[in-house]
Amino acid sequence: MDKDNATPVSVLGLGLMGAALARAFLNAGHPTTVWNRSAGKADALAAEGAVRAATVAEAIDASDLIIVCVLDYPVVRALLEPVAGGLDGKTVVNLTSGTPDQARRMSTWAIEQGADYLDGGIMAIPQMIAQPEALILYSGSRRAYTDHESVLGVLATGRYVGTDAGRAALFDLAMLTAMYGQIAGYLQGVALVDAEGVTAAEITPLIVSWLNAMAATLPHDAEQIDRREYTTDVSSLDLNKAGLATLVQAYEDQGLPTDVLKPIQSLIERRVAAGHGTDSLAGLIELLRK
Amino acid sequence: MDKDNATPVSVLGLGLMGAALARAFLNAGHPTTVWNRSAGKADALAAEGAVRAATVAEAIDASDLIIVCVLDYPVVRALLEPVAGGLDGKTVVNLTSGTPDQARRMSTWAIEQGADYLDGGIMAIPQMIAQPEALILYSGSRRAYTDHESVLGVLATGRYVGTDAGRAALFDLAMLTAMYGQIAGYLQGVALVDAEGVTAAEITPLIVSWLNAMAATLPHDAEQIDRREYTTDVSSLDLNKAGLATLVQAYEDQGLPTDVLKPIQSLIERRVAAGHGTDSLAGLIELLRK
Ligand SMILES: NC(=O)c1ccc[n+]([C@@H]2O[C@H](COP(=O)([O-])OP(=O)(O)OC[C@H]3O[C@@H](n4cnc5c(N)ncnc54)[C@H](OP(=O)(O)O)[C@@H]3O)[C@@H](O)[C@H]2O)c1
Ligand SMILES: NC(=O)c1ccc[n+]([C@@H]2O[C@H](COP(=O)([O-])OP(=O)(O)OC[C@H]3O[C@@H](n4cnc5c(N)ncnc54)[C@H](OP(=O)(O)O)[C@@H]3O)[C@@H](O)[C@H]2O)c1
Repeated sequence: MDKDNATPVSVLGLGLMGAALARAFLNAGHPTTVWNRSAGKADALAAEGAVRAATVAEAIDASDLIIVCVLDYPVVRALLEPVAGGLDGKTVVNLTSGTPDQARRMSTWAIEQGADYLDGGIMAIPQMIAQPEALILYSGSRRAYTDHESVLGVLATGRYVGTDAGRAALFDLAMLTAMYGQIAGYLQGVALVDAEGVTAAEITPLIVSWLNAMAATLPHDAEQIDRREYTTDVSSLDLNKAGLATLVQAYEDQGLPTDVLKPIQSLIERRVAAGHGTDSLAGLIELLRK
Repeated sequence: MDKDNATPVSVLGLGLMGAALARAFLNAGHPTTVWNRSAGKADALAAEGAVRAATVAEAIDASDLIIVCVLDYPVVRALLEPVAGGLDGKTVVNLTSGTPDQARRMSTWAIEQGADYLDGGIMAIPQMIAQPEALILYSGSRRAYTDHESVLGVLATGRYVGTDAGRAALFDLAMLTAMYGQIAGYLQGVALVDAEGVTAAEITPLIVSWLNAMAATLPHDAEQIDRREYTTDVSSLDLNKAGLATLVQAYEDQGLPTDVLKPIQSLIERRVAAGHGTDSLAGLIELLRK
């Protein structure tokens, strides 16, 4: 129920993201204790007013609200297990990226230690932290979320997505998957124009507008996916099969790799071969879902 | 220099896209002649006032401005070669998707027949045609573009990208590649939440916002790509390698395919193995470019 900026916060992990989180708390006036394996990464924050903890145990002792943001869940485990006794009565908000299963197991473990546990997925790059465009998905203890909503609001727009501790990670990973597809497609595309001497700076604004226009059509795909009904007045898989053949040809004409395109081509070809050539692209989900 | 809506136009190909183009000309008041291999696709347009040509030759004869929009370049060739004699003095605007090489060869051939040739890449789905959000890239004859800019403006916002007839196709294919990456990543991501009973309708708005936020960071990648310098204060390839391992694990926990993710994971792992673990994601371009 902390509505002010007096709530002390401890941040474990001061990588690019952890440091951005700690700085956001500090800038909002929260007494902020920080710890990082490589102690040097705390220097700048300490100069800005953060309290440097010498050990994980000391950092946990310093605040009732513990934010964890490290490489992955095995690291979270390795840091917290030796100090499990100190977690009783604390609220652990784990913003490390992981799988839904990892989040659920961590939640069970933290609750066993007497902690309130919230798992989070940060949908932002460090530079976006403390801005409203940054989104953090939370799931797990509803009480932990409502109690700390305003403190957590310092980091990003928060969104609580359910009591299942794995839900935030699930959504996070789906969003990351889409992002990796987008960036891989982007890089593959830039390589094509690069081969003809066109700079990335020239093509990128065109690609960005196009990606935004095409992203706006995804809710229509979503409807089809949910109905499992894939008629199209946009473009058929038959047409996309021809399109992919053209694309791959253009890369091969230039002697360029097609790492990103090939699996997409293969999905389209498999679906056409299975008799779904007049379906929409959204129908490819049938090869990817259970 | 046709600035009015009196310029007659012929459209060859009335698939989903060709029909949208023909309808846009018709709605703008242009005398519009149409031809399609399967004649039935001209019925609706004829009812709306289009003139139906019985043959390709008849369609070419009807207008000085000939728009071609069929499956691929081999089809364009198959349609135009038998009627090559009729192309002298005509302007051919070929909006069929193809490779830069195909566009250049088509341009050379059309010019040999005495035609003015413009190649175009349509960056729109049929539903966007005749709206300013639709973009068509043109390259080839500058005169053909300036002479017909206002008529072509009926279809979409036009953008002339150079005298090299292959340039529009080059840009088109780079943009399409990015789009395929985006949609494939999207479908792969939706499959993950689907496995836990979350609908596409629920996750899609989150994915769309995230894709738009991440697309906005691509100009920064572009700068790095052009400088071939990949330091990062966003996220390192080492971190992304851990992220991809987590992602793939989540799909495997669900027994789901990872067709779209695997090649991206492999690019990241190869680049890390080559000693570039502290570089940004943009550095992956080095594995894709020449
Ligand atoms: N960067 C982003 O854009 C972004 C976006 C969303 C989510 N995230 C997530 O946020 C988390 C942290 O990312 P980041 O960008 O801060 O990564 P990072 O800059 O690579 O930092 C990794 C952090 O993990 C710590 N760490 C690694 N192995 C450790 C170990 N064995 N013991 C103790 N600490 C260890 C590092 O400590 P040292 O300094 O001692 O190495 C560092 O604090 C990740 O789960 C990431 O997926 C990041
Ligand atoms: N749809 C889109 O979203 C989109 C977006 C950008 C660019 N494009 C490009 O626009 C072009 C047409 O796409 P579309 O959406 O209209 O495709 P479509 O609906 O599949 O139509 C294909 C067209 O090609 C014709 N065709 C195919 N084989 C032929 C042959 N052997 N002889 C004569 N005609 C033949 C078809 O005639 P029949 O009716 O007789 O089969 C039909 O008119 C493609 O190059 C595509 O890449 C489409």
